[in-house]
Amino acid sequence: MKQIPVTKRASQIEYAIRDVVVPAAALEAQGHSIIKLNIGDPLAYPGLPTPNHMVEAYQKAIYDQKNGYSPAYGIEELRVAISENEHNKSNGGWNCEPNDVYICHGVTEALQIIFASYLDKGDEVLSPGPHYPPYMAYPQVFGGKTIEYKLDSENGWAIDIDDLRSKMNDRVKLLVLINPNNPTGNVITKTELDQIIDLVSQYENCTIISDEIYDRLNFNENHISTASRSKKVPIITLNGVSKVYYAPGWRIGYMAFHDPTHNSKEVRDGIERMLRSRICASTPAQYGYLAGLNGNDDWMSGYLEMIKERNEFCVKRINNIEGLSVERPQGAFYMFVKLVDPYWNANDKEFVLKLLNQKYVLAVHGSGFSKNYGKGHFRIVFLPKKEILNEAMNRIEEFLIESRH
Amino acid sequence: MKQIPVTKRASQIEYAIRDVVVPAAALEAQGHSIIKLNIGDPLAYPGLPTPNHMVEAYQKAIYDQKNGYSPAYGIEELRVAISENEHNKSNGGWNCEPNDVYICHGVTEALQIIFASYLDKGDEVLSPGPHYPPYMAYPQVFGGKTIEYKLDSENGWAIDIDDLRSKMNDRVKLLVLINPNNPTGNVITKTELDQIIDLVSQYENCTIISDEIYDRLNFNENHISTASRSKKVPIITLNGVSKVYYAPGWRIGYMAFHDPTHNSKEVRDGIERMLRSRICASTPAQYGYLAGLNGNDDWMSGYLEMIKERNEFCVKRINNIEGLSVERPQGAFYMFVKLVDPYWNANDKEFVLKLLNQKYVLAVHGSGFSKNYGKGHFRIVFLPKKEILNEAMNRIEEFLIESRH
Repeated sequence: MKQIPVTKRASQIEYAIRDVVVPAAALEAQGHSIIKLNIGDPLAYPGLPTPNHMVEAYQKAIYDQKNGYSPAYGIEELRVAISENEHNKSNGGWNCEPNDVYICHGVTEALQIIFASYLDKGDEVLSPGPHYPPYMAYPQVFGGKTIEYKLDSENGWAIDIDDLRSKMNDRVKLLVLINPNNPTGNVITKTELDQIIDLVSQYENCTIISDEIYDRLNFNENHISTASRSKKVPIITLNGVSKVYYAPGWRIGYMAFHDPTHNSKEVRDGIERMLRSRICASTPAQYGYLAGLNGNDDWMSGYLEMIKERNEFCVKRINNIEGLSVERPQGAFYMFVKLVDPYWNANDKEFVLKLLNQKYVLAVHGSGFSKNYGKGHFRIVFLPKKEILNEAMNRIEEFLIESRH
Repeated sequence: MKQIPVTKRASQIEYAIRDVVVPAAALEAQGHSIIKLNIGDPLAYPGLPTPNHMVEAYQKAIYDQKNGYSPAYGIEELRVAISENEHNKSNGGWNCEPNDVYICHGVTEALQIIFASYLDKGDEVLSPGPHYPPYMAYPQVFGGKTIEYKLDSENGWAIDIDDLRSKMNDRVKLLVLINPNNPTGNVITKTELDQIIDLVSQYENCTIISDEIYDRLNFNENHISTASRSKKVPIITLNGVSKVYYAPGWRIGYMAFHDPTHNSKEVRDGIERMLRSRICASTPAQYGYLAGLNGNDDWMSGYLEMIKERNEFCVKRINNIEGLSVERPQGAFYMFVKLVDPYWNANDKEFVLKLLNQKYVLAVHGSGFSKNYGKGHFRIVFLPKKEILNEAMNRIEEFLIESRH
């Protein structure tokens, strides 16, 4: 049958993290049990539940019939709580007002709206390589183009500032920082932030998107909000309930505007128009996030300790496996593991698919996070319990031995 | 300060329903109480709460820690329940399989994804005039153009088939039906549906979007699903938890594909790619909707009776006010009222703003629903209690007398 044509913007979207789910689901349908190290969802692993006080606040909102539409930019209490949270950050906050905060269906919707409002044909977005896939997938939807700047795989995946500088130009409307980084776990230092902001300040139409969704999953307590360092460059901070508050399925995130020279009024008006047209984010879920932000957060350090231990465990195991090496993540809950063997280094997707089919361990191929700088790696999530991680490492080790080229 | 440029696609979005909220909020800040007849949100009015069994199921999902990501297309149980619901519709169902159903952040997200996947520069969308504003706002985001076909204001807002026929051509990728219609309350008859489907079947690349979000708010029990009438033309049915299940703030809707000749595989692949890239809709909210679909629905007739009474009440009152007239709505909960006075007929937005400022009643100007066919009208929501509706009608009547030209 002659097919109705699909647009290129839709047909060329790739989202490696979910795309490997298809063959895994086929194996599960045959009765195999898979160790899934692919999706960054703490709720998929035992021991990291959404905290009770957040669950109860969300339940209460539904019971209290807060089931109607909420204001397009979010409920006022939540905007206030987020602005205070940005203001009071431990390593230096910034002057965030409630009106600077817009609540979205997760950071993903924030990105769609930002790209739609900033990007015309020929505009460029600079994103770290490797990066979370929507930073490559979405700009092209609106005629823009993502250019990757290099993260240094030999230096803890720090930003290669010279490479970044060489890619800046007047077409760059948005520079993306992911801090802590997904998939590498790198955390940007204050010196690096200042260098980057200084560089961007030389271009009058460039805004920084600072994706800080993993901000408190920061093992050395050195994470600094980008907005707190900028006196001139506009910064859009992205964050939400998904990772640090352990509730990704609630789909609540936000963007917060730091616009020190007030040159973002027109784009913000466009963003507000788009937000109004799609009505609002989940009303009751916003109350759950509110409870997280306003409640006691002592519980968070227990979760963090557990994750740090698993991080240490995986770093040690991986660096003792012949054929693998990894830079120690400083934040988030991902590890971007290097395939040392030249064949696998050149064929990371084949590695991931064969590992899945032969050993029932699901990782994501590095080239899914960057064509230029991700090849020869795979990403794992180190959230499972140690016994599971250990079993996964055993199987990866076996696979590498059995498949030696 | 020189401004960072905003894209046209964002700056030209208009959403009249929320845009009139800005002056209303200013009046409220001054201490005035407003009778709000602007937003189609049953939860904003007493007596139409989300049913208990749905509230409880949603609460249980949160308590059971269903707070992680769900499958990109929706939880399997909900896709099954929706497919059965489409299959068993009272006036003729259609052969909907669970795999034909995709769960979204409300119908709005479904629309964004559909337009992104179908529309390239120069493509056209035919939408009813008047229509729900996103049908005008979103196609242009992707380079498409919305052309309005005429609903006949003298004939219960029925579709003017000759006008529709005159606007069909090979550039029309999507024809939108809103049934029951927002803002007019018209319900499409079987004969009309068959005529429209026959017309569309003559164009090989045209798909019908059938927005049936008000399907069971159908006062004469004559609503027919479009998909049930099509043997050849692809139909995308839109529906969700917002209106008929009284939970708009949960932000759960769906699109369901009826693709009788299998010519929509490529666009569906594009849609699936876009869905995977944005991860998923709210996981726990999907369980709330599931309870609504699977539970006893006897409660629904009580709600419907209440709404029908308010409909009758408003039709009578309005048709007795000099300067106004209205066609009797057959479904949904909106009335699209004609301003008979020539001055107001030519200045519907001024009417709405003055009514707001002088009488504290908030309606939405008809031109916000259609530049061509909405002018000279205003939309009200007839969900408030009779006493409130009566008070609103009194004030509108007073305003018309006091402002007589």
